[in-house]
Amino acid sequence: MLITFEGIDGAGKSTQIRKLRKWLAEQEVEVLVLREPGGTATAEKIRDILLESRDNISPIGELLLFSASRAELVQKVILPALETGKTVILDRFFDSTTAYQGYGRGIDRRMLQTVIDLSVFSLRPDLTFYLDISPENAMLRKFSEKSLPIAFDDTELDRIERSGLDFFRRVRQGYLDIIKEEAERFVVLDALDKPQTLHKRIIESVSPHVPGKRNPSESSTGDGR
Amino acid sequence: MLITFEGIDGAGKSTQIRKLRKWLAEQEVEVLVLREPGGTATAEKIRDILLESRDNISPIGELLLFSASRAELVQKVILPALETGKTVILDRFFDSTTAYQGYGRGIDRRMLQTVIDLSVFSLRPDLTFYLDISPENAMLRKFSEKSLPIAFDDTELDRIERSGLDFFRRVRQGYLDIIKEEAERFVVLDALDKPQTLHKRIIESVSPHVPGKRNPSESSTGDGR
Repeated sequence: MLITFEGIDGAGKSTQIRKLRKWLAEQEVEVLVLREPGGTATAEKIRDILLESRDNISPIGELLLFSASRAELVQKVILPALETGKTVILDRFFDSTTAYQGYGRGIDRRMLQTVIDLSVFSLRPDLTFYLDISPENAMLRKFSEKSLPIAFDDTELDRIERSGLDFFRRVRQGYLDIIKEEAERFVVLDALDKPQTLHKRIIESVSPHVPGKRNPSESSTGDGR
Repeated sequence: MLITFEGIDGAGKSTQIRKLRKWLAEQEVEVLVLREPGGTATAEKIRDILLESRDNISPIGELLLFSASRAELVQKVILPALETGKTVILDRFFDSTTAYQGYGRGIDRRMLQTVIDLSVFSLRPDLTFYLDISPENAMLRKFSEKSLPIAFDDTELDRIERSGLDFFRRVRQGYLDIIKEEAERFVVLDALDKPQTLHKRIIESVSPHVPGKRNPSESSTGDGR
């Protein structure tokens, strides 16, 4: 089973992934948590270029680099893990590319889709949790996380984070459009809900897929908060 | 004007590019020589991943990395140079992708073409010199260049060079097929001809494009050898 988490940075994906991983482990499900970009030696080098570089990378260059990292991760790590029966949780997958490079950077969706198809080898998530948040709230969370003053100083942000509020508004719109097109795969969550409320809703959606866990109301909710 | 050089490593592209650059400079043509992959800060980092890495990169990952490097180089360096009237000489361009990743690695040509189209922004070479050599002769040249014993020791070769003779046979066949499809753009040269003979043939093809140089037989042939 492949579960993906999507949403703009600051939506709280990491927290929910950590809770879900713990809960699945308690159900004795073998879990592998991965993040994009990265996850293989080559993909981690690509991650460095994409996130740490102070160079101005073109939208097309960015698309191709993200996709190269994805092709490596899918072939070398995700597909082999799924074949051995593991559940894979992925922090971002191709929906991020559609939202960020398609809507955010304005790359033609048809060309974008060809590159996505080339990089995912027909793999699709079984479930995708989208944590919805406004760019303004996401930015506030990001700044408080990094203990930065609210007065704008972007030197502590990575290359993508420095793209500005208008960029993130387009990205959010992108996510909302994708969800309309493929509603059955998505679970949309309000990122401003309490972490434990979100976690409960997530395990309600995951439970039916876990062997012997047909009634989520009787199951543990992880760390009990 | 955009002039590209193609051929498997060891064909002698660098020597001919050096001679052509010198000759063009003597004709007071402003020349910029570039090589793929590389040429911008980001593209050079991608070059390191592609050539220096000991990791086993997947064919699709390789295609996307080469294409990301190309997109950066075309947008940031080649197109601006051509716009200011410079002549650009390029050591490898998209024909290398068709030959190496298409024929060599076996990636579907239709998908490959979409990625190429995405990365070149409609730019096409005015002239392409293809230096034809058998993989066996190319390998012998490579080993003697690096002063290696002929007994096979591939630790001094880069990641692509270690792909083996069968790979390079497919690459050469790829070049020969591309040339059949687009004969008008290509000048096919026998890489085993003497460097000065090759240089003469190259300036014969370039001269008609150089202002005031309609009769190549009267022009200098560079270093006079």
